[in-house]
Amino acid sequence: MSTVVRDSLRAAIARDSAATLMARCAALAACTDKPGEILRTFLSPAMELVHERMRPWLKSAGMEVSVDRAGSLRALYPSQAGLDAPRLAIGSHLDTVPNAGAYDGVLGVLMGLALVEALGGRRLPFAIEVVGFSDEEGTRFGVPFIGSRALVNRLSDALLLSKDEDGLTIGDALSRYAAAHREAVDPLLDPRTAGYLEFHIEQGPVLENRNLALGIVQALAGQSRCHLVFHGRAGHAGTTPMQLRRDALAAAAEWVSFVERTALSFSGLVATVGQIAAEPGGVNVIPGVVRCSLDVRHADDAVRSHAVKVVLDEARSIASRRGLSVEAEEYHTQSAVHLDPTMISLADSAVHQAGYKTMRITSGAGHDAMVMAEHMPAAMVFLRNPGGVSHHPDESVLEVDVAAAVHMGLHFLDEFAVFLEKKESDRLA
Amino acid sequence: MSTVVRDSLRAAIARDSAATLMARCAALAACTDKPGEILRTFLSPAMELVHERMRPWLKSAGMEVSVDRAGSLRALYPSQAGLDAPRLAIGSHLDTVPNAGAYDGVLGVLMGLALVEALGGRRLPFAIEVVGFSDEEGTRFGVPFIGSRALVNRLSDALLLSKDEDGLTIGDALSRYAAAHREAVDPLLDPRTAGYLEFHIEQGPVLENRNLALGIVQALAGQSRCHLVFHGRAGHAGTTPMQLRRDALAAAAEWVSFVERTALSFSGLVATVGQIAAEPGGVNVIPGVVRCSLDVRHADDAVRSHAVKVVLDEARSIASRRGLSVEAEEYHTQSAVHLDPTMISLADSAVHQAGYKTMRITSGAGHDAMVMAEHMPAAMVFLRNPGGVSHHPDESVLEVDVAAAVHMGLHFLDEFAVFLEKKESDRLA
Repeated sequence: MSTVVRDSLRAAIARDSAATLMARCAALAACTDKPGEILRTFLSPAMELVHERMRPWLKSAGMEVSVDRAGSLRALYPSQAGLDAPRLAIGSHLDTVPNAGAYDGVLGVLMGLALVEALGGRRLPFAIEVVGFSDEEGTRFGVPFIGSRALVNRLSDALLLSKDEDGLTIGDALSRYAAAHREAVDPLLDPRTAGYLEFHIEQGPVLENRNLALGIVQALAGQSRCHLVFHGRAGHAGTTPMQLRRDALAAAAEWVSFVERTALSFSGLVATVGQIAAEPGGVNVIPGVVRCSLDVRHADDAVRSHAVKVVLDEARSIASRRGLSVEAEEYHTQSAVHLDPTMISLADSAVHQAGYKTMRITSGAGHDAMVMAEHMPAAMVFLRNPGGVSHHPDESVLEVDVAAAVHMGLHFLDEFAVFLEKKESDRLA
Repeated sequence: MSTVVRDSLRAAIARDSAATLMARCAALAACTDKPGEILRTFLSPAMELVHERMRPWLKSAGMEVSVDRAGSLRALYPSQAGLDAPRLAIGSHLDTVPNAGAYDGVLGVLMGLALVEALGGRRLPFAIEVVGFSDEEGTRFGVPFIGSRALVNRLSDALLLSKDEDGLTIGDALSRYAAAHREAVDPLLDPRTAGYLEFHIEQGPVLENRNLALGIVQALAGQSRCHLVFHGRAGHAGTTPMQLRRDALAAAAEWVSFVERTALSFSGLVATVGQIAAEPGGVNVIPGVVRCSLDVRHADDAVRSHAVKVVLDEARSIASRRGLSVEAEEYHTQSAVHLDPTMISLADSAVHQAGYKTMRITSGAGHDAMVMAEHMPAAMVFLRNPGGVSHHPDESVLEVDVAAAVHMGLHFLDEFAVFLEKKESDRLA
């Protein structure tokens, strides 16, 4: 069979797969902990229901299905090379934020299933493990990536003490889950796993703006979160002349504008003031205290650190010039993660073989691939997200873009086989 | 009894009254809707408690006490001349801003009580009605003067549709109040009321700077209150490049800075953004909607109107330049009010008879006297406010200045009797 014929066949298979995948996303969107919106949290009843619905699909595709003791869904498609063959993990998460859309996370897990199905029973020189992580969003415990951290043995004791709103710790929740699921397997990833592939909607407008179906993630931005409190002096809005004011909101507003200008001045930097509150908050009272949040992200940790320093220094300078004081604290930082150059080039090549154009993209959001990439070569593929809306019921993806992803994914499997073969021959040489 | 003897007696009575008044302010400051700070809003439980505490004090002074259906406290000290005698209303408001001080409003109501008490049972040719208005600050509904407007039949249908943060309208709140207070009386002021007198802390630094205990208000600045809603587009803080954002808070911040610059550019103008709220309000979400308040004041209505137009036009221009939309509504305007020259001269004369110096002053703050003055001759007396701080827990007044006010007030009652007598003889002539 010529490459062209084989590829038009793959394109046709991918179109069918995409239609099935869209229907499955809708079916799983109906599994919710809160009727009227999509919400699935770590180890929740809706998550169990998702597992129930996916189990027969995974089995029909020839996979061995289990859940692990961290609540993640695990499905293994064996290799032609037997039990000692290397593995490729393909996954994403099955949990959601409150009032979520139907695709964030779920799509990546169903993409793993779609690729195995599209093989039509054909075995590869490596096994494929499809993983549906139990938690990435951190909705229940305020701590993200519980599912992927369990796979790579990064569930620290401190983390296990995080509590949900009922006061239950992650450790307690996991113990209860294990007691109720005696068949659950060890979450630790098989050491033969040689790579991780994740598909995800972009959650932003970049691919749409560039008119591209797929983007190859080269890095996941690091982030800093800060909390600022401007302390001025409250006063009567009618009787305090402008010149005698120490208005905390006027100071904060000047700073918010500076944050925006600074972010615009560094290529690739994003900085967001998402929360602001003025106290005492009367229509006719000069704000005495203003609290702001700040979220700063960049693929280069040095650029991010510098930008954070610049904007926090300016907050102090604005406060000082106006006779106010400011508290500015960076309470959370996450380093940038750069994905594996080899895996990136395999993905890049697969996109082109499938007949699509693509671009390298930096993910501004965190993903399971961030955790996985610290332990093995990882690649991540973004699908165009019309409107750039995510974490919202309006979140969407185009079926043709899903077909492009399946098509590209099939080429990726070929590329990965060649990569493993070369790696093995290098090892033996 | 010679004038000098009588006046030193009055001074002694005034000193006792002042001590009592200070203690009462402290007792009423403990009536709050929010433990840890002083907050009393329209028709709130804390307001009911204030009424309960004041009722026995008013009754002991020989007054008939009721509440009206707009939630204001009403106490009548009958005249020696019987039921047909004219009346002098003395009042101020009992509600507060959030995190308020102990004197703004309350002091003026207790001054009415103090003057009646200081009469020691002596009846006058006119009745005195002490009024504790239920709302002047507008904290609950964003609309001020609900209490005084009800007295002069100025509660418009449009106003009654204003909503609090629970979505309840003023109209609904009043209906519920009336249902729960079947004994409440008609709020309309008795047509025999011939004048209004209000004592209030200055809420600014002018009297302190001039070393004066008392000031006679000659005019109250006009004010405009506006509500603005910037509509942008919410989005993920990590995945939306700066260039593709329509950040409602970045727009609002630019506007807040413009408001400040504009106010500084017009002599005597004050403009304040006291409230700001960003939605959805996540640390990692670009604000899609920002709501702001705006308060603008000036003694010259034309200057104020022009300034409001300039800043609202700029809000539209900022929104348009950034691809946002903005709703900007001037929902309340109050023209500058010039108080009655005759009442001013009575007050002026009373201050001098009590042995004090005084000055004419323009109030930058709105007061119930603004509403009352449009319907009857009104006078307003400011008490020195050390530090010029109000709408704040540090708000203060000196007991000696309260004594000066009581002393002056007793002379004012004499002056007012002469004025009424002359008015009546003019009418008969």
